[in-house]
Amino acid sequence: MGAHSNIESQLKMTRTVVESRTKTAIIGFDQPFCVIGERINPTGRKKLAAELEAGDFSTVEKDALEQVACGATMLDINAGVVYNSNPNPNETEPPLMRQVIELVQGLVDVPLCIDSSVPGALQAGLEVAGGRPLLNSVTGEEDRLDLVLPLVKKYNVPVVAISNDDTGISEDPDVRFAVAKKIVERAADFGIPAHDIVVDPLVMPIGAMATAGLQVFALVRKLREELGVNTTCGASNISFGLPNRHGINAAFLPMAIAAGMTSAIMNPVRPQEMEAIRAANLLTNNDPHGATWIKHNKPPTVEGEAPAGARAGREGRRRRRA
Amino acid sequence: MGAHSNIESQLKMTRTVVESRTKTAIIGFDQPFCVIGERINPTGRKKLAAELEAGDFSTVEKDALEQVACGATMLDINAGVVYNSNPNPNETEPPLMRQVIELVQGLVDVPLCIDSSVPGALQAGLEVAGGRPLLNSVTGEEDRLDLVLPLVKKYNVPVVAISNDDTGISEDPDVRFAVAKKIVERAADFGIPAHDIVVDPLVMPIGAMATAGLQVFALVRKLREELGVNTTCGASNISFGLPNRHGINAAFLPMAIAAGMTSAIMNPVRPQEMEAIRAANLLTNNDPHGATWIKHNKPPTVEGEAPAGARAGREGRRRRRA
Repeated sequence: MGAHSNIESQLKMTRTVVESRTKTAIIGFDQPFCVIGERINPTGRKKLAAELEAGDFSTVEKDALEQVACGATMLDINAGVVYNSNPNPNETEPPLMRQVIELVQGLVDVPLCIDSSVPGALQAGLEVAGGRPLLNSVTGEEDRLDLVLPLVKKYNVPVVAISNDDTGISEDPDVRFAVAKKIVERAADFGIPAHDIVVDPLVMPIGAMATAGLQVFALVRKLREELGVNTTCGASNISFGLPNRHGINAAFLPMAIAAGMTSAIMNPVRPQEMEAIRAANLLTNNDPHGATWIKHNKPPTVEGEAPAGARAGREGRRRRRA
Repeated sequence: MGAHSNIESQLKMTRTVVESRTKTAIIGFDQPFCVIGERINPTGRKKLAAELEAGDFSTVEKDALEQVACGATMLDINAGVVYNSNPNPNETEPPLMRQVIELVQGLVDVPLCIDSSVPGALQAGLEVAGGRPLLNSVTGEEDRLDLVLPLVKKYNVPVVAISNDDTGISEDPDVRFAVAKKIVERAADFGIPAHDIVVDPLVMPIGAMATAGLQVFALVRKLREELGVNTTCGASNISFGLPNRHGINAAFLPMAIAAGMTSAIMNPVRPQEMEAIRAANLLTNNDPHGATWIKHNKPPTVEGEAPAGARAGREGRRRRRA
């Protein structure tokens, strides 16, 4: 189809290249969905925060290894802990960011996503991260644009652009699109190309806003077609407050991928969501010869067990038919 | 957004009304996805075919009750059995179609879909089915158009239009769109409105054609935007020949729904696919207040068990984290 061919020609242009010291990953419309592991983040994880304050990095190590083993393309690193001993994140977060990044890139070889709202922590992360990390994030707020875009330019890294501005997060998707457009244009003034901007259109909880899904799907399509940018989101936000969140997330991700979403910051340790993403990669022709799907869903061997996906399917059938 | 508002205004126009004697269901962009239960069909079911030849309707009864209990919106009725005693379907299928429809509409109250390639069986079904059944199907083949469209007009029923013609099934989605357009135009000549045509764009197996998913998503969008028609498909065809078919189907359905697909002929007894559809209904704002989602995913009570969906989610977590 005509429209489809036009999109085909754009596919190759929107490639966000991220790198560790030894490994390259590409975020793009013609790539498998980029799963950015969200676990290394003390926000809302009191136990992890206390461990970090005590200099215990065992959970960080476990989370790094486990997320990569489960298929994360990249790992998000957030060191936004508020110490009991020092409540000033401008003092505590930069050295902790440095420490965690050095630890994680010694353990795993995937590219990293440096996640902070503290400019000094972004800077510290950029100084120690090997390769070409993704910076997370800039917003449409004037002071953030002024602080973060020079770092993006100086270190020649891609950046997550969150579509809120000084007026807050708009419930109107037109406003969120306009904020994203402003960030892309402002970045262009710095010589930063659109393919190095990964827009987060902001996912609202469907339980609070019934049109949240339709909004995101329409926004992602528009961001892709009109701005030519990759997109990301905090995927699990969609199901906040509702029962069986994994079931909602596991439908939301393929739908967002069908609309053109190319990455998500999410928990890769969840098998239901990861299976949905592998299926969506297959269905968008981003799993050549179905190799990854088949590898994860091998039929059971005589002595072995069925893989997780196949087993879940058969259990489902037995349960219903019993 | 502008484009979104235009679509909003079309939503109400594309409503395909189907009825049993006592119940109405609507297929439409602003409706929950229409699940057409596929089980009552002896094709490829030797045991069922033999039972029907022997006058045993117990499997039909069980399939009717079970599919409705699992959430089917409609039931497809296919009586395409080839008897050992009489291999001529023009003689055997019409009376069997009549018999099965009378049986099923005595048991359950959902609207029916009369499914045959034998014109006499379509006619027989139309004579006995109460309400406003869906006729399945017409194609772009000249003799089928000449035979089926007059029945559609005479009985004032909606019809499934399969996008193949005298040249067969094209692998080119542009050709399949053109065939669908021809059927819609030919129907208009009979005074049959586009909202009474439910187009099946034909789903190819992804294992045989890597672009099969992208083709369907683009075709469904185009059929919706340019012809304003509802769509259906044999959903499980997408996963033919691959392992863990339910995992593929459960991602395909939400993706197709995100593209605008409004119904599918499928097995409603599969919990994984049905959960994905309920989530997609929620995410497309077709589950007011999330009532259906919440009903199916109630938290566990003290003495009771968790519902299927919630249990699967927790098992998944335990398995991975063990």
